[in-house]
Amino acid sequence: MEIKTIRHSLSHILASVVQELFPGAKFGIGPAIENGFYYDFDLPSQVLRGKIWEGKPQKLTPDDLPKIEKKIRKLIKQNIKFKKKIVSKEEAKKIFKGQPYKLELIKEIKEKKATVYESGKFIDLCKGPHVKSTKEINTDAFKLTKIAGAYWKGDEKNPMLTRVYGVAFETKKELDKYFKLQEEAEKRDHRILGKKLELFMLDEEIGAGLPIWLPKGAILRHTIENYLYEELTKQDYKWLYTPHIGKIDLWKKSGHWNFYRENMYSPIQIDEEKYLLKPMNCPFHVKVYNFKIRSYRDLPIKFAELGTVYRYEKSGVLHGLTRVRGFTQDDAHIICEPGQISEEVDKLVKHGLKMLRAFGFKDYTIYLSTRPEKYAGTLKDWKKAIDSLEYVLKKNKLKYQTDPGGGIFYGPKIDIKIKDSLGREWQCTTIQFDFNLPERFKMTYIDKKGKKQEPYMIHRALLGSIERFIGVLLEHYAGSLPLWLSPVQIWIIPVGTRHEKYAKELKKELSSLRVEVKDENETVSKKIREGEIQKIPYMLVVGDKEMKTKSVRVRERKKGDIGIIKLNKFIERVKKEIEAKKQ
Amino acid sequence: MEIKTIRHSLSHILASVVQELFPGAKFGIGPAIENGFYYDFDLPSQVLRGKIWEGKPQKLTPDDLPKIEKKIRKLIKQNIKFKKKIVSKEEAKKIFKGQPYKLELIKEIKEKKATVYESGKFIDLCKGPHVKSTKEINTDAFKLTKIAGAYWKGDEKNPMLTRVYGVAFETKKELDKYFKLQEEAEKRDHRILGKKLELFMLDEEIGAGLPIWLPKGAILRHTIENYLYEELTKQDYKWLYTPHIGKIDLWKKSGHWNFYRENMYSPIQIDEEKYLLKPMNCPFHVKVYNFKIRSYRDLPIKFAELGTVYRYEKSGVLHGLTRVRGFTQDDAHIICEPGQISEEVDKLVKHGLKMLRAFGFKDYTIYLSTRPEKYAGTLKDWKKAIDSLEYVLKKNKLKYQTDPGGGIFYGPKIDIKIKDSLGREWQCTTIQFDFNLPERFKMTYIDKKGKKQEPYMIHRALLGSIERFIGVLLEHYAGSLPLWLSPVQIWIIPVGTRHEKYAKELKKELSSLRVEVKDENETVSKKIREGEIQKIPYMLVVGDKEMKTKSVRVRERKKGDIGIIKLNKFIERVKKEIEAKKQ
Repeated sequence: MEIKTIRHSLSHILASVVQELFPGAKFGIGPAIENGFYYDFDLPSQVLRGKIWEGKPQKLTPDDLPKIEKKIRKLIKQNIKFKKKIVSKEEAKKIFKGQPYKLELIKEIKEKKATVYESGKFIDLCKGPHVKSTKEINTDAFKLTKIAGAYWKGDEKNPMLTRVYGVAFETKKELDKYFKLQEEAEKRDHRILGKKLELFMLDEEIGAGLPIWLPKGAILRHTIENYLYEELTKQDYKWLYTPHIGKIDLWKKSGHWNFYRENMYSPIQIDEEKYLLKPMNCPFHVKVYNFKIRSYRDLPIKFAELGTVYRYEKSGVLHGLTRVRGFTQDDAHIICEPGQISEEVDKLVKHGLKMLRAFGFKDYTIYLSTRPEKYAGTLKDWKKAIDSLEYVLKKNKLKYQTDPGGGIFYGPKIDIKIKDSLGREWQCTTIQFDFNLPERFKMTYIDKKGKKQEPYMIHRALLGSIERFIGVLLEHYAGSLPLWLSPVQIWIIPVGTRHEKYAKELKKELSSLRVEVKDENETVSKKIREGEIQKIPYMLVVGDKEMKTKSVRVRERKKGDIGIIKLNKFIERVKKEIEAKKQ
Repeated sequence: MEIKTIRHSLSHILASVVQELFPGAKFGIGPAIENGFYYDFDLPSQVLRGKIWEGKPQKLTPDDLPKIEKKIRKLIKQNIKFKKKIVSKEEAKKIFKGQPYKLELIKEIKEKKATVYESGKFIDLCKGPHVKSTKEINTDAFKLTKIAGAYWKGDEKNPMLTRVYGVAFETKKELDKYFKLQEEAEKRDHRILGKKLELFMLDEEIGAGLPIWLPKGAILRHTIENYLYEELTKQDYKWLYTPHIGKIDLWKKSGHWNFYRENMYSPIQIDEEKYLLKPMNCPFHVKVYNFKIRSYRDLPIKFAELGTVYRYEKSGVLHGLTRVRGFTQDDAHIICEPGQISEEVDKLVKHGLKMLRAFGFKDYTIYLSTRPEKYAGTLKDWKKAIDSLEYVLKKNKLKYQTDPGGGIFYGPKIDIKIKDSLGREWQCTTIQFDFNLPERFKMTYIDKKGKKQEPYMIHRALLGSIERFIGVLLEHYAGSLPLWLSPVQIWIIPVGTRHEKYAKELKKELSSLRVEVKDENETVSKKIREGEIQKIPYMLVVGDKEMKTKSVRVRERKKGDIGIIKLNKFIERVKKEIEAKKQ
């Protein structure tokens, strides 16, 4: 039995209990999701019905969940059968009379018939599949986890329903493991770390999903941006800066206005023209390519930009830095001759993985997505591009999964999802061919024979969104960022006031690093505790002995006191540690 | 006689000629401006009047200007008198019957009476002053320069008038000097240089006033941004990154929506909320300040950002990089205790001038603007702030001009206008107190006594707009940027194909610099000519002799061949040159 099916069936049992407890409840949908399931209910209001359930108003609270769980267990033990029935839509309408959400769903069914599942006293409009009987469900391997509000169909204009979430696995062991991981993940929650370490802030008055980088977060972002700048410059990328708005006609020409409008914000009026906030940088890069006539001698041309783009996300899905409305792409476009694509993709993949390693990500899953039903470009173009992607993956002995037809309409792609220290996957690198923009913008180059040709174009983002990547970094390291990325790398803690001068001298000698002297009027041990909370990589405690011998007593993050080290030895050690990431 | 008065009188004489040549012409306004004057005319259309002037349609062309000039000279020689009359508004309306623009202006007069000036057959609504007689005007010291379209009152909804521009001075010598300077300025036009050196582009399809930085321009911008980052970090500034949009309520709270709306773009709708593109970074920086409780121990706090802002400018005034709709401020806010302001302003001025010197600007004019009629804050605050500004200027022995009442409503300010190599002034640095935002956003800190206080806030931008500053840099240096700012610093030109390997080795040894090997199949002399056009600071020609002795034949920009130099000596020389700017 697939776990997904068990989860789905559990959502029906949950609904069955709610039906019993809240007569008159209206039912939304109840799918299986990652790790579990949910069901959306429109509970009859107390005022409307004047009834009270177990002394409480007609409202579910987290306190009710254990009681509901108990009732679910009871039902499971009754070995309730799931019976599938195929009925006409007219019959379905009768069955779900008084259930407005179900009736709405029935209207949307394109087929002639509808499928319903009956389990005990509960009947649901549902395609299945389900367990044959509840005896296939492990009563110890599920748990109801939370209650949340959810708009019907996710649309804020619709009524708010009550969503009950549950998690479910095949065994209790898996369930326990899940909760342990959850607990660990909560400790690593980048939203909490971001506040505690003063890295970024979100503010309702500014707007949801629009992070501000606080000074320490800005150092982190700047360090990452610098690293990208240096690495890509070495790889012969040319940097661009492009505006954050462009005329609506540009976005019509590029196809974004037609195919991507739901992710874009409403137009801004300037004089007689409409402008749009950019959701992507591509059209601007294409414009730069078209700035002058290009020859085969100039190719490949690689344009890179740290471009801040704005995309609409529903407020309900916004989440810290990992799901935002404004973010900065480490964007690049490689424009080359058809004969150059394998070499360029090879460089992209090799160099990309090297850079991900520098950030500490060594595990990843690679997906190759091929041609969907609707596509731009020719079959020949697609084949050539997919062949080169496959060739490179095989040549580099990289395992990958194929997602047949999963490419975007404009070209095939490779996605690299990095795995963090908890094994969670995060979409990060993407390498995408584009057979759409070169045609729409009439990009050309003069080939060896003096003839005009259309070049190949590859989009690529390595980190994807710098904001999300930093969110992932924080969770991956639980805030203990590698030395080279730490906003504050070293604290110098003078034991007494007479050691403050020495502390300040040390700071000067360490001026190539990010160092703070902690000379507040507090005890050394309090400062050390605070430094541990702030995840400072090195704390140098300096007193008489250290001053005399031009050395420092080093506390290393997580290790604690590692003894007295001569200053020059310590500097050597730290520089080596920073250099190491670049290997 | 003030030259301004002569210019103004010339505009009337010009109008008088136009009145004679185009019976039925309607008159707009004709003020004196920098270096000269203009007059706006609504010329009767050919179709309307069916008449033709000297065989041409009823339209002014540049070819007509010499003829008009001739007629102006003739009138000047007639010693025409300017007669001032004060008339009732009713009388004025009679005088200007059939002159809709003048009638509109009469309506706007707040006084009871109107002033008119009569000169020969022409009468104008005008406050003066004017010359007594045209004999005060030098017939050799003026020239009509161009014709342009200009909307009545600068508003695109109004009719387009024909504007005739002229320049005028007291002597012919001054006039000649002006044209020579103009010629020089045209050669230095940053819009032409920007295209020739491939630094930036503007594109109608993207939108007016929205520059894109091409790869070489991006290096220049990045170099400047890096310099700012390093310098300000050393000065203990903390960097921020803030979004490009914010909720309308934020801008209402800050006062921008009330006082700055005409410079802002129309709102963007996101869900139920309206957002605005930021015209300034201030409210975001204030939000960061308010992120946590601040103590006197934390002050001064200095937040810096390279923040791209968007401000409305009429399309007619847009000009290359110097007048745009989107630009990047090197913005900072210093928040401090009242007792710290003199010290902080002192640092700002000293450090600011040092940085301007690094870019090669050694001449400037400083303006101190004091309290206007309407103001935020208390009289005491204003006095304290102005005192500290004056104290710092005097302490540093800096000459300055006072602009009484010229401060913005929220606080007094110092402006520094840099002078370029043609003696033109450019608004650049500004240091402004703000008594508005701290109050509106309830900014506080805990003072030594544990009491909540409102801090002082100083806005400051050093370069002002990075875009405009680069425009000024290009004109100042006529494109020959100092070595440290040059996007390409060195060209290595191998004499023959057998020297290409050595050329590439050299490039590696010079890897800390921006170097290109010019190995195209072209003659050395052609490459040198191209390098001169591209204003490359150093071209290194390498052949057998240079290869044997590990040296390079150096061509320095503007100087030409300066002989063979050992590679290590050359590297030393170049590094010294780059370091020198930082002094």
